[in-house]
Amino acid sequence: MSENKIPYKIYLSEDEMPRAWYNLRADMKVKPAPLLNPGTHQPMTAEELEGVFCRELVAQELDDETPFFEIPREIRDFYKMYRPSPLVRAYCLEEKLQTPAKIYYKFEGNNTSGSHKLNSAIAQAYYAKRQGLKGVTTETGAGQWGTALSMACGYLGLECRVYMVKCSYEQKPFRREVMRVYGASVTPSPSDTTSVGRKILQEFPGTTGSLGCAISEAVEAALSAPGYRYVLGSVLNQVLLHQSVIGLEAKAAMDKYGVKPDIIIGCAGGGSNLGGLIAPFMGEKLRGEADYRIIAVEPASCPSLTRGEFRYDFCDTGMVCPLAKMYTLGSAFMPSADHAGGLRFHGMSSILSQLYHDGFMEAISVRQTDVFEAAEEFARVEGILPAPESSHAILAAVNEAKRCKETGEEKTILFGLTGTGYFDLVAYEKFHNGQMQNVIPTDEDIAKSLAQLPEVL
Amino acid sequence: MSENKIPYKIYLSEDEMPRAWYNLRADMKVKPAPLLNPGTHQPMTAEELEGVFCRELVAQELDDETPFFEIPREIRDFYKMYRPSPLVRAYCLEEKLQTPAKIYYKFEGNNTSGSHKLNSAIAQAYYAKRQGLKGVTTETGAGQWGTALSMACGYLGLECRVYMVKCSYEQKPFRREVMRVYGASVTPSPSDTTSVGRKILQEFPGTTGSLGCAISEAVEAALSAPGYRYVLGSVLNQVLLHQSVIGLEAKAAMDKYGVKPDIIIGCAGGGSNLGGLIAPFMGEKLRGEADYRIIAVEPASCPSLTRGEFRYDFCDTGMVCPLAKMYTLGSAFMPSADHAGGLRFHGMSSILSQLYHDGFMEAISVRQTDVFEAAEEFARVEGILPAPESSHAILAAVNEAKRCKETGEEKTILFGLTGTGYFDLVAYEKFHNGQMQNVIPTDEDIAKSLAQLPEVL
Repeated sequence: MSENKIPYKIYLSEDEMPRAWYNLRADMKVKPAPLLNPGTHQPMTAEELEGVFCRELVAQELDDETPFFEIPREIRDFYKMYRPSPLVRAYCLEEKLQTPAKIYYKFEGNNTSGSHKLNSAIAQAYYAKRQGLKGVTTETGAGQWGTALSMACGYLGLECRVYMVKCSYEQKPFRREVMRVYGASVTPSPSDTTSVGRKILQEFPGTTGSLGCAISEAVEAALSAPGYRYVLGSVLNQVLLHQSVIGLEAKAAMDKYGVKPDIIIGCAGGGSNLGGLIAPFMGEKLRGEADYRIIAVEPASCPSLTRGEFRYDFCDTGMVCPLAKMYTLGSAFMPSADHAGGLRFHGMSSILSQLYHDGFMEAISVRQTDVFEAAEEFARVEGILPAPESSHAILAAVNEAKRCKETGEEKTILFGLTGTGYFDLVAYEKFHNGQMQNVIPTDEDIAKSLAQLPEVL
Repeated sequence: MSENKIPYKIYLSEDEMPRAWYNLRADMKVKPAPLLNPGTHQPMTAEELEGVFCRELVAQELDDETPFFEIPREIRDFYKMYRPSPLVRAYCLEEKLQTPAKIYYKFEGNNTSGSHKLNSAIAQAYYAKRQGLKGVTTETGAGQWGTALSMACGYLGLECRVYMVKCSYEQKPFRREVMRVYGASVTPSPSDTTSVGRKILQEFPGTTGSLGCAISEAVEAALSAPGYRYVLGSVLNQVLLHQSVIGLEAKAAMDKYGVKPDIIIGCAGGGSNLGGLIAPFMGEKLRGEADYRIIAVEPASCPSLTRGEFRYDFCDTGMVCPLAKMYTLGSAFMPSADHAGGLRFHGMSSILSQLYHDGFMEAISVRQTDVFEAAEEFARVEGILPAPESSHAILAAVNEAKRCKETGEEKTILFGLTGTGYFDLVAYEKFHNGQMQNVIPTDEDIAKSLAQLPEVL
């Protein structure tokens, strides 16, 4: 099909939507290292994990061999409410940049949670429901994950308790209110509903909370309430599995028009979006069937891949969760108050960390103010107001497209536009008013944080 | 095609998108009454209107005969960025209601302005640009129109000055910030940038403004700045013409699957969404080719069709704009602080008023708290967080579907879901906290407001 026949937006039909998630690990020669029990430093068993997570999700978490997991019909029906997400040909951006590059983006923001998080939220809620559980607990920082989980639970009639970092709870009342629309109970963390919360409140009266503390509260709440389990929106293998729907749809849409990307770009915090977007492409690369440049983009304020160490670390700052082998800045690392809240995680998915370590992908870090400049340029020509997280990928894609202009190369670029910025307008306001700063950790900051880790393995 | 083959969402392909707007007036035997000059009470001439509005738009405004206006290629390209909007089959809502009715909705919220307003904003901005103008001015209350116009102007490189009612400016800083992302200048009204603003500030220091005042400021700003014109997001014939793209797409999508609606429902403030949604269906009805029940839903707090008078009135509370013949509560009517800001207009499009007067459509009014209850139920089963305005149509559709359950009739219902509620969470919060009230005007309130009108014609 001729190039100019490609529409602005490619939608798959319902028949063309993926019927199975793709498990990237099945094609990895070097598998990601297993989670370790924080007490014994032995690999976590299914039995141990099932105390905290749903049974079916534990099976998915531990399975490094099965390439495809069928998506249950109920989840596929839910996906039909907001998927397929469009694959957009960025004609207007290309024209604005006067680049010979062809730019595509997979837009995951057209749902009320405003991001790709819903893809895994509905899966996790579904398996909890099928196990006969009463409810789930989780934490949320910026609020995208909490919103997505509330929507999924509201749909399935499952109880949902969200521990929201207190400063977000206060600064983002609208996010909190969306969760309430979907019937979730939202508790500012630290709270007096858990012993860990009470302890922190006693030690640090007036604290505005942290993600680490909220995780600890959510885990305790799940363990102490009968019929409850804890769920998590990123980092875990199961989350990347569910998010593979992004990449599978993107690839199917491109295949339909005979388009092959040269470069694939995604923002990277815990890895849920990037891992999902690249999954089928990386599969081809691992099997030697195709080659792609794959680029992870992280904030300069929290650069785990580009400046972290590849080693075992805790997933939470409270150091109660299992240990994961990953690129990490150290679980004690305190990222600056960057506005891309979804990217402020000290570590990175074990799967992506291993792939990066083995040379299958690149990583770059970018500065916050440059990211907002690219976001605004994008909004004006492509219409969509992007989330700060997603805008990291926009900036990298724009830079690649500009390089094509210099060299004259007609490269095809695919990037992930993970969500919308409707709840991030305080950040945009700061940017407009010139109050936004780039706070970048020094080598000493990172070394100090890593030095606090226990020596394991 | 068998009923169960209908997908959750029907998207037209780019080839199937409308290439012309449909002008409902061409099929009306009784035409809507003309706008009158507020001084002479004579029909406004093209020349008079061109002092305020763009030339091409004046031609569209005055043309009661031409059935189709070709959509310029540049506008069709812009439409491709966020259109076709999906026609959604509300399978989940039907199941929840256990109704034999088939429910469809046309969802216009999947763009950053969050509503259907963008359909006319890009058209009006385009003709201003083509006329060689420098910029446009407008007013905005709730902010959807101002956002849409900012996006359109940002895209075309046209200056955009928005007068935003001061209380909205202060209470909805995020709306203001989105407009700034798109490069608009946003001024809280009343302001000291216009003589009418200065006069009001002097008379009422500390006032938080009104839509009427903002309109007056925007008109004055357009008249006093060289190369500027004023644009408006509803009520006018030209706006309904542009918005016909909603109904044309909806009809094409339904025709594709052999579906015919029995009942068509839309919320009604100034009439932009309702007039657009029903256009091609009403055309068939006017030509005697088909019959449909068509229902306008208005807030009980501002019930122009159901409780107003059909007569000439000013479009603005400042009584400086042309007179339109319409159902009106009187331009001096002050609606309560209802949260469906987009529906708080004292009058109604002349086209819709005439059609209602001639018995081609019905109208009902509904209470704010019932609307939010329907909105929340809808959000939980269909995923989308609806705008309060749109939720008026949801409530009416749900009530019709419940009636079908009682009678066993398998009616097909189509309603317009005009936008999302991401910027209306203060209202949702009030609803959750039980602080929302239904303020409904008394007969005396309405009579008093109507009595202030000058006797014309």
